[in-house]
Amino acid sequence: MLLLALAIVPLAAQGPRRASLILSGGIVITMDGGHRVLRPGAVAIEGSDIAAVGSPAEIAEGYTGEVIDTTGDIVLPGLVNTHGHAPMVLYRGLADDLALMGWLQKYIFPAEAKTVSPEMVRIGTRLAALEMIQSGTTTFTDMYYFEEEIAAVAREAGLRGVLGETIIKFPAPDARSPAESLARAEAFIGTFRGDPLITPAVAPHSAYTLEKDTLLACRDLAVKYAVPMLVHVAETEDEVKIIREASALTPVGYLESIGFWAPRTVAAHGIWVTDADIAILKARHVGVSHNPESNMKLASGVAPVPKYLAAGVALGLGTDGAASNNDLDMFEAMRQAAFLHKLESRDPRAVPAPAALDLATMGGARVLGLEAQIGSLEPSKRADVIVVGTNRARQTPLYDPVSQLVYATHGDDVKTTIVNGRMLMKDRRVLSLDEPRVLDEARQFSAKVRDAVRP
Amino acid sequence: MLLLALAIVPLAAQGPRRASLILSGGIVITMDGGHRVLRPGAVAIEGSDIAAVGSPAEIAEGYTGEVIDTTGDIVLPGLVNTHGHAPMVLYRGLADDLALMGWLQKYIFPAEAKTVSPEMVRIGTRLAALEMIQSGTTTFTDMYYFEEEIAAVAREAGLRGVLGETIIKFPAPDARSPAESLARAEAFIGTFRGDPLITPAVAPHSAYTLEKDTLLACRDLAVKYAVPMLVHVAETEDEVKIIREASALTPVGYLESIGFWAPRTVAAHGIWVTDADIAILKARHVGVSHNPESNMKLASGVAPVPKYLAAGVALGLGTDGAASNNDLDMFEAMRQAAFLHKLESRDPRAVPAPAALDLATMGGARVLGLEAQIGSLEPSKRADVIVVGTNRARQTPLYDPVSQLVYATHGDDVKTTIVNGRMLMKDRRVLSLDEPRVLDEARQFSAKVRDAVRP
Repeated sequence: MLLLALAIVPLAAQGPRRASLILSGGIVITMDGGHRVLRPGAVAIEGSDIAAVGSPAEIAEGYTGEVIDTTGDIVLPGLVNTHGHAPMVLYRGLADDLALMGWLQKYIFPAEAKTVSPEMVRIGTRLAALEMIQSGTTTFTDMYYFEEEIAAVAREAGLRGVLGETIIKFPAPDARSPAESLARAEAFIGTFRGDPLITPAVAPHSAYTLEKDTLLACRDLAVKYAVPMLVHVAETEDEVKIIREASALTPVGYLESIGFWAPRTVAAHGIWVTDADIAILKARHVGVSHNPESNMKLASGVAPVPKYLAAGVALGLGTDGAASNNDLDMFEAMRQAAFLHKLESRDPRAVPAPAALDLATMGGARVLGLEAQIGSLEPSKRADVIVVGTNRARQTPLYDPVSQLVYATHGDDVKTTIVNGRMLMKDRRVLSLDEPRVLDEARQFSAKVRDAVRP
Repeated sequence: MLLLALAIVPLAAQGPRRASLILSGGIVITMDGGHRVLRPGAVAIEGSDIAAVGSPAEIAEGYTGEVIDTTGDIVLPGLVNTHGHAPMVLYRGLADDLALMGWLQKYIFPAEAKTVSPEMVRIGTRLAALEMIQSGTTTFTDMYYFEEEIAAVAREAGLRGVLGETIIKFPAPDARSPAESLARAEAFIGTFRGDPLITPAVAPHSAYTLEKDTLLACRDLAVKYAVPMLVHVAETEDEVKIIREASALTPVGYLESIGFWAPRTVAAHGIWVTDADIAILKARHVGVSHNPESNMKLASGVAPVPKYLAAGVALGLGTDGAASNNDLDMFEAMRQAAFLHKLESRDPRAVPAPAALDLATMGGARVLGLEAQIGSLEPSKRADVIVVGTNRARQTPLYDPVSQLVYATHGDDVKTTIVNGRMLMKDRRVLSLDEPRVLDEARQFSAKVRDAVRP
């Protein structure tokens, strides 16, 4: 409470300050260093930032402005999704329950070859943004094609994004070669650097789909512009086999051997890692994005989450693309992380609810190198805040708000979503996107996808 | 379509019949023997029964009556929950992430000792019924105390239930001894036999919490009245150890050795079973209730679902009580079953979406011995039907309705719930229970629970 007092006391002497928005009366889960939970609490927002967090009385004393009554609700930091491919929502449920290679070769690759275009990326990302806003995700991480379209939609929708143009050795929908992708990636970084919502990144697809020179060119680009690097690492046993045959090393060991790591690398999946690999990831400050639902549905394996946590590796949660999950609901990712590692470790104490919520908020922020800006409700951080209703039968009674968020809450329970101080959804009404139009355009586009995979 | 034609053609000659309700225009997933999916389809209900299933034109020709337009929705059989303890919703989230013995001894047992009463059971079951109606469960299976109160609430709420008074060797909230429980169980059966909604059952708690004589007395009761028997079997490794030390047999082997099985026994969990055990369960027509969420959260283990399916054991899904899950949403149970066994078998083809949906409908009906009455939309079965909306961003686009139900649908998407021809919820408004009052009474009661576990 010391910081808060420092923030408020000098103001009180000058009379209350004008806040752009005050959320007051709910249970406020701050996710700050002290894991403070205020019952009740209040949050004052000034422009894009959180001005103060305290009791309703403290905030009322320090601030005037529009007040949203959050009595009976839970107020918490917006959720941070550390891995995904937003436009792939257009392939959601197109083909499930198939062996990986058949799924990719008969459905996903043909669908991508025939339908990925700037238009598809816009339509898909709007649908994904709608789903994310409706389920309380305020920051998403993305690697796909035509990433500039994704960034434009993120701005329009008001979402925060860490976005990277995918670089891969095969001809891609938006580039004939890795060199062309690299040029696109550099142009993308130039366009979006300094954007209040978009953090541009470099996104080499993986160690097994890129040559060493391109991997290192990606790293150089990330270092040159001081941007994050997004990469798939150790997702499948096949990947391990390919890398091992070529280098006699693990995927992490191989990337270490070539000096791949940039100052902020985000490794998606990180399933097939040894203890030595975990030590490398820790030493190189690599963040790991854990995607429990995708890893289960595609039968990829189980990331050693308790080991990552014990080693102090920066760890966050991701949904992966909706073709392999099949949704973007971070509440499900939290519950699944808690469930999966209890089962895997045969210990019901593994990944308790507070740890799962930390992964989806501060953990994700750390993975993305944004821990000074987002991930908790603290003065001077960006105002990325969600309000979650608690009045459904499924959520009754309410003993422990953190447990309830992880074990009984759905994305659909999110009432209000605020990013960078802007209200994107209020009482379930999305304000930044035209919901019926977004859904309608996605449905119309889905006919093209269906045609693309027709035998 | 032959059966339908037989049902309709003679009627057309006499002019259309009066239906009490017609659901027309949606995608109808019948779960019948041919796994017919009608796009679009219609269902005519007469009183408590399904009169006909066909195309909207066929049904319009054969039936008049109130029509609910289900265009854009999915119409399917109500979901069948094969294991749970309804009143335990009042302990939902009371204490999570604890080692099993500490959880039971510090929280669940004290809470039960101090708070289980007819009033608690009524309040809790109303809350559970509300949640089940809202999430599309139309039949639930239950073993708890004061089971007559649960049956009374099920009737009031309009839910179908297979309900058994728990018999356990310790003094219970409603009986000082197993003999007293057995007497209560017999009285319960006498009261509810022949009820259109309630199937009374006998519910011996488990092989490790009952003596042989009581187990056999339970079986005799089930045989005498031709009712199902509900029992926990092979849920934890501790249970296996206890039984093995006493008998040198597995839990299933021990129950086989004493001749425990009744003609319709429902074994909840069935995790720690050998191939020989599976063969016994198959030979004795024992149905197995698989509870993937509870088994993950409590770190109990993984039931060998692909083996059960391959062996032809009757298999259904359950949520278990909300103290160990933490909700009663059968859509989550379906998704979790599909995810868990893909991961466990390292095969993304394991438990595909149609198999998961079958477990939650016809599979559950078979487990309970009710396959002639419920589990599919077929003429002359009871009208247990749910209507699921598909228009959220999370559910868009819609390629395959069965995949979408399993991988992208929540209980909250259920719009309308009909049991035995009675509309329990219409457009999310619950008609058979006073929702605000049910929630309010549960919240008030939760203070007593909190006090009961205060250190």
